Amino acid sequence: MQFCMVPYNLLNKKAAYLETGTWASNAVKEARLFGEVDVVASSKDANFSYMPSDFVIPADADYFHYTSNNTIYGTEIRKDPDSPVPMVADMSSDIFSRPVDVSKYDLIYAGAQKNLAPAGVTLVIVKNDALGHVDRAIPTMLDYRTHVKKDSMFNTPPVLPIFAALQTLRYYKQLGGVKNLMLADEEKAARLYEAIDASRMFEGTARTDSRSIMNVCFVMAPEYKDLEKDFIDFATERGIVGIKGHRSVGGFRASLYNALPLESVEALIAAMNEFERKH
Amino acid sequence: MQFCMVPYNLLNKKAAYLETGTWASNAVKEARLFGEVDVVASSKDANFSYMPSDFVIPADADYFHYTSNNTIYGTEIRKDPDSPVPMVADMSSDIFSRPVDVSKYDLIYAGAQKNLAPAGVTLVIVKNDALGHVDRAIPTMLDYRTHVKKDSMFNTPPVLPIFAALQTLRYYKQLGGVKNLMLADEEKAARLYEAIDASRMFEGTARTDSRSIMNVCFVMAPEYKDLEKDFIDFATERGIVGIKGHRSVGGFRASLYNALPLESVEALIAAMNEFERKH
Repeated sequence: MQFCMVPYNLLNKKAAYLETGTWASNAVKEARLFGEVDVVASSKDANFSYMPSDFVIPADADYFHYTSNNTIYGTEIRKDPDSPVPMVADMSSDIFSRPVDVSKYDLIYAGAQKNLAPAGVTLVIVKNDALGHVDRAIPTMLDYRTHVKKDSMFNTPPVLPIFAALQTLRYYKQLGGVKNLMLADEEKAARLYEAIDASRMFEGTARTDSRSIMNVCFVMAPEYKDLEKDFIDFATERGIVGIKGHRSVGGFRASLYNALPLESVEALIAAMNEFERKH
Repeated sequence: MQFCMVPYNLLNKKAAYLETGTWASNAVKEARLFGEVDVVASSKDANFSYMPSDFVIPADADYFHYTSNNTIYGTEIRKDPDSPVPMVADMSSDIFSRPVDVSKYDLIYAGAQKNLAPAGVTLVIVKNDALGHVDRAIPTMLDYRTHVKKDSMFNTPPVLPIFAALQTLRYYKQLGGVKNLMLADEEKAARLYEAIDASRMFEGTARTDSRSIMNVCFVMAPEYKDLEKDFIDFATERGIVGIKGHRSVGGFRASLYNALPLESVEALIAAMNEFERKH
């Protein structure tokens, strides 16, 4: 819903978007209904295998929008970019995996279902100053000002995921906050990428400088390609599920969201090593 | 959200709306962003204390929209109206309280939080034929066709309230279906309205022909007006909570949604009788 709410509320004439994956493309598509969209860079031609870094954000854009993590392609921007115009980020799949300099953003949004709570609620952080500058009439529910004014209780709020989010955030505090979550996430990802890079059978799909800490995408090296299905079965027998890659990348995807313990990563690495020894 | 999705998807030129309460008024307001709105009747002048029945739906309207139950004012239409144009109903607060002739409607919507599941999901029943007849571009998430095409899984669905809805519907089946729920609901409401009508201290606020089975609104008779606060306290001491009326009606509101057992209604009636005897 934010894909259309962002331009509904913020796009007067032109917006700048970074196109780095399926959801970023969807965001571009929605924004085009509301005004001109300048795609400042796209990694589409390389099947979204990297995060473009060499781009210029036009100074006359109403805002710059990017997607911090691309679950399907396993790429991520882990440093808050600099922008000459107000910045908007979709952090749905990597929020709470690193400290964010919130002051750099006019608007941050994140579906709860990765690192916060069960699906059904979206976290939005928006600067009051960012709102009220467009000319169009905005339907009440799609107007961020409605929710600001009504303390997010304009409509009956989805109480279950909100309560789960509260409990999750309390737990995160107990763990020492986002900084500690980051260390744990980076440790998990580092271990898995090391195993992939050390292997002759497996190889990562994302360019190394763009690798995601949340979603590790990898495939079989060309000479082992026909063993992909076998490895899925092999892993499943060991209780490792949900590692099939998205059809647009193929291979495997290990999602290392905050809820996943290091032991699960170790189990995957052990299975990979064992499988490789066997073949 | 349906308040803007309905006109986004269905309103080409003109829509007919019945204005029977706060939410019906909100629906009118949103529809006006998309085209002409003909308010065929309104009970606003009488503080929404009744459901208008004498109105003409223009034959050239794209659709006729009404709100079947008004929680704040305790009024309800319990018979599927006849309409010369496609009919749309907001049944958020009385769905599953009576059998509905679904074939009479092009679109029915209902927030789950009254008779179906915890807040966070909305039930929509829409005829495929009703869609695709407007000229405007519709944002993907607001286009009903997106959700039809993707089996309601275009975005990550709110799994918790959906699962709760499944369990509730199974339970409803066990109870013998909507017809039995209706009998139970009507029994609860009849008992409470009888008690109100028999009392000299309490009086109903909705016109008798418009009384809701779901929300029974009543006040103290003028000569007892200053005892309203006392009765709330009196009831609270007996474990009866949540009966304060909405500020736009005052007095009391007993919501008799499907989850409420007859015993709770009996407890309220007993408290009312006891309080009346005391004063």
